[in-house]
Amino acid sequence: MGDDCARILVADGMELAITTDLLVEGRHFLPRADARKLGHKALAVNLSDLAAAGATPRWATLALCLPAADEAWLAEFSDGLFALAERHRVELIGGDTTRGPLAIDITALGEVPRGLALSRAGAQPGDDIWVSGELGGAALALVHPEIAGAARRLHEPQPRVALGERLRGLARAAIDVSDGLAGDLGHILERSKVGAVVDYERIPRDPSFRKLANAQLEAQCVLSGGDDYELLFAAQAGQRARIEALSSELGLALSRIGAITPGTALTVLDKNGKPMPYKGGYDHFAGI
Amino acid sequence: MGDDCARILVADGMELAITTDLLVEGRHFLPRADARKLGHKALAVNLSDLAAAGATPRWATLALCLPAADEAWLAEFSDGLFALAERHRVELIGGDTTRGPLAIDITALGEVPRGLALSRAGAQPGDDIWVSGELGGAALALVHPEIAGAARRLHEPQPRVALGERLRGLARAAIDVSDGLAGDLGHILERSKVGAVVDYERIPRDPSFRKLANAQLEAQCVLSGGDDYELLFAAQAGQRARIEALSSELGLALSRIGAITPGTALTVLDKNGKPMPYKGGYDHFAGI
Repeated sequence: MGDDCARILVADGMELAITTDLLVEGRHFLPRADARKLGHKALAVNLSDLAAAGATPRWATLALCLPAADEAWLAEFSDGLFALAERHRVELIGGDTTRGPLAIDITALGEVPRGLALSRAGAQPGDDIWVSGELGGAALALVHPEIAGAARRLHEPQPRVALGERLRGLARAAIDVSDGLAGDLGHILERSKVGAVVDYERIPRDPSFRKLANAQLEAQCVLSGGDDYELLFAAQAGQRARIEALSSELGLALSRIGAITPGTALTVLDKNGKPMPYKGGYDHFAGI
Repeated sequence: MGDDCARILVADGMELAITTDLLVEGRHFLPRADARKLGHKALAVNLSDLAAAGATPRWATLALCLPAADEAWLAEFSDGLFALAERHRVELIGGDTTRGPLAIDITALGEVPRGLALSRAGAQPGDDIWVSGELGGAALALVHPEIAGAARRLHEPQPRVALGERLRGLARAAIDVSDGLAGDLGHILERSKVGAVVDYERIPRDPSFRKLANAQLEAQCVLSGGDDYELLFAAQAGQRARIEALSSELGLALSRIGAITPGTALTVLDKNGKPMPYKGGYDHFAGI
C-alpha cells in the first residue's frame, strides 16, 4: 500500500493463478448484509477459485465501492476479510476505495508449481467424479434463512484451499461449486469435451434436508443451488485409495458421485436408475 | 478465460507490479458516457499506474457491473478497451460480469526487472522535479466540455508506458498525475519524507488556457486538476541531459518544474517568486 502499484515476487518454479470476483449489493447479497460476513465471503469466493486451480493463495487486492464512509461498517468488513486472509496467509497488497453503490471486487493471486495447475479441461471417459463436503446448504438458506447451518454455508463459506493444493497431480479436472453442481459439472464437461452420469443419491447434502422432507426443494438445491464452494473434480479410478486417504487426512468428506462418459450429456440418475430432470447452471444475464 | 483462474508465467528476473482501479458511474464518469471511451479510460488509468512503477504492462482482468446486457454498449466498450490493450500488448486474462449499477474494475499486471520498480519513495533534496506532457486539460474539460483537446485529455488519456519503462534506474521517485499535481507531488513528498518548491510558470499546460485567459481557473486546473495521467518524477540534477535526450527520443515533452527540498512542505512560486495558494489532493471521502 502507499504506491499506485503493489509489487510481488513469484517464487522460482511457480506460476501465478489469478481470479477476480465482483459482489454487488442486491445481486450477490442483500442490503444491510452483515459486514463481517461480507468481508469473509468476498475473499472466500476468490480463494475458492484459487483452490479449484490447485493454487496456494498468496496475495489479494480489494476494490470497494461504498455509499458512505461508514467506519463501523468498514471495521467489521475488514475484520471478516482479514480473519480469513490471515488464516490462509494471504497478504492484502493494494486496493481502491470509492463512493457509490455498495460493490466489492477482490482479485486474488496464488502460486502453483509450473504445469501443475488444475483446470476445467482434462477429464476423460472412465474418470470418477468427486465432490467435497456437502451441497445444497447455501441455496437452502435462501429459502430457509432460519436454519443456522445452512445460513453459515451461504454467508461464511470455507474455501477448500488445502484440498485444492493436494489435488495437484491427482485430479484431472476441477472446479468449485459456485453456480450449482449441474452448471459447474457442465463447465468441466464442456471444456473437457466429455459427458457424465451422476447418481443423485450419492451426492452428499446438507443434513437439514432430512428433516424438511421436501424432495423437490432438496433436488433443486442439491443439483442446481449455488454458493456452496465445495470442490468438484474428476480423477482416474486408480486414484480412489489415495483420494479416500486424503479425505481422512484432511477431515473432509470426499464423495464419489458419478463417472465421466463419452459424449457431451450430463445425466442424473434417480434412486431407481432413471434419468431425472435438473436445472442447468446459472447465468447472471439469463432472461434479460 | 474459461477457467475460474487465469494463469500467468512471470519471466525470470522480473517482478510483478499490480494495480486495481474502480470506476463508478456518477463518480468517475457521467451516466451515458461514451462506451468506447470508457473502455479506453478504464484500462488507461491502470496502465498509467503501471507506467509510474516503471512496469511493462502484460495482463489485465476486468470486473464489470452492468445494469443490463446491452450488446451494443458492450461491443463499443470492448472496442475501446481492446484497442488500447492491443497497442500495449496487454492480454485480458479473466473477468467477471454481473448485473447492477454500472461499475468497472480493472486489475492490471506488469513486469519490471527485480529491484528496478519505481515508487513514490526515494526523492532526495536537490533532485529535480519533472513532469511529462501538459497538465490541466482534463480538469478544464469538466468546465468546458466543448474544448475538443481538453475533452480528449479527460476521456482518452494516453498512459505514459514507454516513458515509465525508460525511467527505470533514472527517476528516483515517480507517480502518475491522477489526483492533481499538488496532491500527487504531495504523495511523493510524504513517502520520500522531503519537501519541494515548484515554479508555477514552468508547469506545462494545455494550450487552451491561453485563449481562455482565466487565471484562476487555469491555476486550479494546472495545480489541482486530476485525470491528466502524465508522469511526475524526481531525478538527480546530473541526469538532465539524459532526460532531455529521452524527451526528444520519445517525442514527449518533459519539463523541469522545480526541485526537491529538505522539510515536508510543498511551496508553489508564482512568476514573481512569491508563494501562491493551491488546493491539495483529492479525497473521495472528503466532506462526508
